[in-house]
Amino acid sequence: MLGSTHGTFTTDSRRARVLACGEQPSPVVHGRPADVDDLDVSGRPLYAGVPDLDRFFRPESLAVIGASDTEGRPNTGITRQLLAWAERVGARLHPVHPTREAVFGIPCFPSVADLPEQIDLAVLLVADPLPVVEELAEAKVRFAVAFASGFAETGEAGAEAQARLSDAVRRSGLRLLGPNTNLNAFENFREDLDGPAIALITQSGHQGRPVFALQELGIRLSHWAPTGNEADLETADFISYFSERPEVGAIACYVEGLKDGRAFLLAADRAARRGVPVVAVKVGRTETGARTAASHTGKLTGADRVVDAAMRQFGVIRVDGLDQLQDTSALLARARRPLADGVAVYSISGGTGAHFADLATEAGLNLPQLSAGRQAELHQWIPDYLNVANPVDTGGHPVGDWRGRKIIDAILADPAVGVLVCPITGPFPPMSDKLAQDLVDAAEQTDKLVCVIWGSPVGTESAYRETLLGSSRVATFRTFANCVTAVRAHLDHARFTASYRSPFDEAPRTPSPSFRKARALMRPGETLSEHAAKLLLRAYGIRVPREQLVTSAAAAVRAAGLVGYPVVMKASGGQIAHKTELGLVKIGLTSASQVRDAYRELTDIARYEGVDLDGVLVCQMVERGVEMVVGVTHDDLFGPTVTVGLGGVLVEVLQDTAVRVPPFGEEQARDMLTELRGRALLDGVRGRPPADLDALVEVVMRVQRMALELGDELAELDINPLMVLPRGQGAVALDALAVCGPGPDGQDVNQQPL
Amino acid sequence: MLGSTHGTFTTDSRRARVLACGEQPSPVVHGRPADVDDLDVSGRPLYAGVPDLDRFFRPESLAVIGASDTEGRPNTGITRQLLAWAERVGARLHPVHPTREAVFGIPCFPSVADLPEQIDLAVLLVADPLPVVEELAEAKVRFAVAFASGFAETGEAGAEAQARLSDAVRRSGLRLLGPNTNLNAFENFREDLDGPAIALITQSGHQGRPVFALQELGIRLSHWAPTGNEADLETADFISYFSERPEVGAIACYVEGLKDGRAFLLAADRAARRGVPVVAVKVGRTETGARTAASHTGKLTGADRVVDAAMRQFGVIRVDGLDQLQDTSALLARARRPLADGVAVYSISGGTGAHFADLATEAGLNLPQLSAGRQAELHQWIPDYLNVANPVDTGGHPVGDWRGRKIIDAILADPAVGVLVCPITGPFPPMSDKLAQDLVDAAEQTDKLVCVIWGSPVGTESAYRETLLGSSRVATFRTFANCVTAVRAHLDHARFTASYRSPFDEAPRTPSPSFRKARALMRPGETLSEHAAKLLLRAYGIRVPREQLVTSAAAAVRAAGLVGYPVVMKASGGQIAHKTELGLVKIGLTSASQVRDAYRELTDIARYEGVDLDGVLVCQMVERGVEMVVGVTHDDLFGPTVTVGLGGVLVEVLQDTAVRVPPFGEEQARDMLTELRGRALLDGVRGRPPADLDALVEVVMRVQRMALELGDELAELDINPLMVLPRGQGAVALDALAVCGPGPDGQDVNQQPL
Repeated sequence: MLGSTHGTFTTDSRRARVLACGEQPSPVVHGRPADVDDLDVSGRPLYAGVPDLDRFFRPESLAVIGASDTEGRPNTGITRQLLAWAERVGARLHPVHPTREAVFGIPCFPSVADLPEQIDLAVLLVADPLPVVEELAEAKVRFAVAFASGFAETGEAGAEAQARLSDAVRRSGLRLLGPNTNLNAFENFREDLDGPAIALITQSGHQGRPVFALQELGIRLSHWAPTGNEADLETADFISYFSERPEVGAIACYVEGLKDGRAFLLAADRAARRGVPVVAVKVGRTETGARTAASHTGKLTGADRVVDAAMRQFGVIRVDGLDQLQDTSALLARARRPLADGVAVYSISGGTGAHFADLATEAGLNLPQLSAGRQAELHQWIPDYLNVANPVDTGGHPVGDWRGRKIIDAILADPAVGVLVCPITGPFPPMSDKLAQDLVDAAEQTDKLVCVIWGSPVGTESAYRETLLGSSRVATFRTFANCVTAVRAHLDHARFTASYRSPFDEAPRTPSPSFRKARALMRPGETLSEHAAKLLLRAYGIRVPREQLVTSAAAAVRAAGLVGYPVVMKASGGQIAHKTELGLVKIGLTSASQVRDAYRELTDIARYEGVDLDGVLVCQMVERGVEMVVGVTHDDLFGPTVTVGLGGVLVEVLQDTAVRVPPFGEEQARDMLTELRGRALLDGVRGRPPADLDALVEVVMRVQRMALELGDELAELDINPLMVLPRGQGAVALDALAVCGPGPDGQDVNQQPL
Repeated sequence: MLGSTHGTFTTDSRRARVLACGEQPSPVVHGRPADVDDLDVSGRPLYAGVPDLDRFFRPESLAVIGASDTEGRPNTGITRQLLAWAERVGARLHPVHPTREAVFGIPCFPSVADLPEQIDLAVLLVADPLPVVEELAEAKVRFAVAFASGFAETGEAGAEAQARLSDAVRRSGLRLLGPNTNLNAFENFREDLDGPAIALITQSGHQGRPVFALQELGIRLSHWAPTGNEADLETADFISYFSERPEVGAIACYVEGLKDGRAFLLAADRAARRGVPVVAVKVGRTETGARTAASHTGKLTGADRVVDAAMRQFGVIRVDGLDQLQDTSALLARARRPLADGVAVYSISGGTGAHFADLATEAGLNLPQLSAGRQAELHQWIPDYLNVANPVDTGGHPVGDWRGRKIIDAILADPAVGVLVCPITGPFPPMSDKLAQDLVDAAEQTDKLVCVIWGSPVGTESAYRETLLGSSRVATFRTFANCVTAVRAHLDHARFTASYRSPFDEAPRTPSPSFRKARALMRPGETLSEHAAKLLLRAYGIRVPREQLVTSAAAAVRAAGLVGYPVVMKASGGQIAHKTELGLVKIGLTSASQVRDAYRELTDIARYEGVDLDGVLVCQMVERGVEMVVGVTHDDLFGPTVTVGLGGVLVEVLQDTAVRVPPFGEEQARDMLTELRGRALLDGVRGRPPADLDALVEVVMRVQRMALELGDELAELDINPLMVLPRGQGAVALDALAVCGPGPDGQDVNQQPL
């Protein structure tokens, strides 16, 4: 029923894989197998399997194709590193080389076909992995890693070579990491660290290095997936897999471009259901960044604000710097579910407390005032003239003796406090060494989060290196800003997962009754007239004014009688933009003669301006409310998106809009409204009544349904204005622009004569 | 002529000091002595002397009042530290104590009067410094430092004690640091570091510690002024003094509250004239922060957006974190004047380059594309498939051999490049050690700025600790964000100082002819009627519509005839807000009968609403333009401020306004417009003509003049709307609200019945 026109925003390869999995369940995909029912009404998957990558990260048998022990050859260094890794993880390593007898004393096999056992993982150190992939498939090898570069990152010819490689892999049944990847998956992971770990996914090895180096600060890393060009395995696959691993506390990603928007959302959805935080740097805030990243990875970067919205919808925590990626994922990996959202600030200086409190409240953190009883308790140990309401200022001395620990415990005992932050901006060993130790000890005995900021830029102090970094229960930061960002992310993520309902569970699978009516109105490759666009809205249950399309002055007068005076009259045609500016709208017409005059004037202007009309609309006048815009546009990466904004000058001048990627629930539609800078207009300003938010939300949800069902057939929709009437009175679409997508013959709307 | 009513926004103590200096030039103030001519028309100083603090920071003789060598007493530790410091700086130290013979073997004097020589600096380790100050004055001691706490930071009684101390100091002729300060001025400053230094000013010793610790990373510090409660010497005094010191490259400040807004501006002006960058953390972004800081220091924090504007006007670089304060002041202290504003990014990974470029362009940095010739040159050493346009991606290998340095030199040779940034996110010694050394070597041989980001969180690597931190020519950062912030500040500051013209040089000293007319209209403690407010505007040459105030329907008709149809009619009275909502405005009246009806209706509504009228205004209709608001409000710290914003929904809902602190030049008035989010409205959107910006700027400047001349007499002014007509047609104030300040009897406007 959903014809081929729906195909283009389902990445073909993705869809093919989902279908393939349904037909022939593979050992490397576990969980519920996908089938055709797992597609939404737009033809896109509602479910993605989790590739079973256990044997990728912990293979029992490993083949190195192109292994070498000739000094000076790059493959020799790699072979050496793989040997060391194989020994650490207990894998049997088999070198493969057409001419060598042995490599580093290990017997070598001339080809893949000659390998002595079933191979879990083959590492391809060859310039052209394509022919090898076919041999590997023959030998039923499960996983391969291709280091070779020269694919999509180098331009068009490389992209074609990569497409051939992808095809071969898809046919083969094996799963491939790369090409253009590296040894990062086979690094030395410290085994002596405990607690939940960070799993790392990067599209650039160099950019993952500082996160991996957290191990040297005592923070556990469990995996590193350097996804390279993602000819097969992509970021989304690793997010899904890591979400299921019990040792993973948080997933840290460095993303330059996403291969498939829907796959990413499904993976993020899985992480959200499992409560596993995903923290991501995504390059592409600017044109420059997006362009440079695209040329580096050969991937789409998507419109940044759409990426941003998609991440927020699914609880992915986006940060800008690698330092934030480190600090936020380290905290989220190890922090327990918060017991309260209150943050208490404790410091040896009133200035430090004031400064941190300033930045924390600006970021939206809640610093509750401690109760009078608690303050009295603290004043047993802290001089009376110091402020202990929160921030708690000790003035210094009490931290150096027995009182220090008592103060910390008293703050942590407060039920309003879920997080204790202690900024130590200047190390002063007689105080700060004791303070650090007290914080570490207290953290061992509480389920609450204890954060310390070690503000010294030196960083070689033992209180920092040994005491604080030696504790897996204290989260240690170097800057106020990164602590605030991480604590905020922790509390937000806990709130998010507590109320998360997957929109994929409720996404429509079959077309609504509206769909047939709507489709009959579509004109592939054309812009619909205002009247047709409004009929489209009406098909989806969105209110439009009573109106008639007329082609004579006499008919206009009859229509006005039926519609009811006063009326609005507008020129109607497929391609009229800026009707008001051209004088093609007449409002407040109260008599037959005014209607007749208006008809004449409108058609005269249209003739003069060279505008083709299909007639003149005679419309009911609608009372004043708040003018909004609601629309649909298509994103390269995520397909159709729904936008809502404040109309009039706010949308024209400030682009004050919010966007969401379907599928999304009603709570997201409400959330969009809170993002608008001019949202106060909806609540009623200067005595105006509050607007009908429920009706507005319902229009947004109906527009989403339309976007999903019509897919590429609806290239663009713009309801402007949607008049949102006072509460209880609904919302009416006063004007609309609808651009139909290309027809079955691939006619593109942009190629139509304008 | 400018009576006592102008006094309250000149801090009395400040003014008294300026006058005192004029009368009796003191040896501790140098530069041009201030006199009465150095007051602007508002009675505030246009000039502040620079205290000569040479003998404070480098005394030849030092007295320690309350010195001790009894183990376990706090004063003993302090005395010991002062002894060590005195030895380092070559000062003769004299302990003073009523009963001791000697302290640490140095002969002790029973009182200040007994001291054997003229004393440069006395350190007061006594609980009550007040009586000692009088003794010091007697003995002609130049400087004193008071450590005692228990003053303004503890509440009202403490504030009174502090006021008494301030008075005593003012009478004494000496200059005092503190009370509630500490030893920071007498720390161990490394003498082995060269290059321009950071001078540090903090209101909390603990908060200055990380900046001071930069010495351990090889960055020179020359001074530290811990200003404490600022009973006398304040942040501004130290900014002025440090601006004149040749060894100071940048001034870093940690500010919780300012003692005197004008003094701060004059100091910042001095730094701007001298081209010395001032970087400041100012607590008070939020209510919580401001309140906590105020309770810590007992100072006013001022409205944050006004502080923000004042700092920008005078080139002070405001940052939020102590890490940014460190990194930005370190860069600004040492960077030479930029030769170009282009930033080139160089990295061993395309991902790193893309990521940095993304954040840098988002922050407004200019990353020029390198010329084709330069790219060809770089491709001699870098494979062809890598992008070298900027960012320059080497792919890694070339940095490890002879090509590495050639690439750096080629980039630095480009005339479009003023700054080279090399982010090294992952240390890989075979490459990164060589890269770090090449960057250090190249930096030695160029006047351009070389920045390196050492992204590893570990920070113990030798390439970082020895190579990079060992160079005073490379600016080393730990995060992308801090590098972007510092480079941006460096380029902005260079642009700022290159075009800086001090507004104090052009500030009005004597009242304009408008002043007398305007003053006659003021009604102390009252809100002026719309008509009176417009007369006030007219007195200052601001256009208002032709209008008449009438008190009968017949007079209204006569007035309409004179003003010219169509007319607008409005109820006029002192205290009418929201006229439009109440129905007290009638527009587009085209006939005598409409005018008569309108008169009746307006007076009926006013009676019904209980509004006192002084009549009805009959006004000329003004054509449509862009509605703006221009106003004056008073800030606790800075006195009158001028605000401009977009009118209508933008000001009501978004508070889309910009503010400036007088005095400011026309360029600042223009700058205000660029800050408005809705500024596109002024340029003309959807075919509307561009607005008359020159006329708008002129209104802002005239309002500034009014604010300066009327001072406290004009408590509040709000022109709303100011209709800015199309270019060349001017701007007209359609409505205005003016609230007069308290009269000479101190009547407060808020106590008037509403």
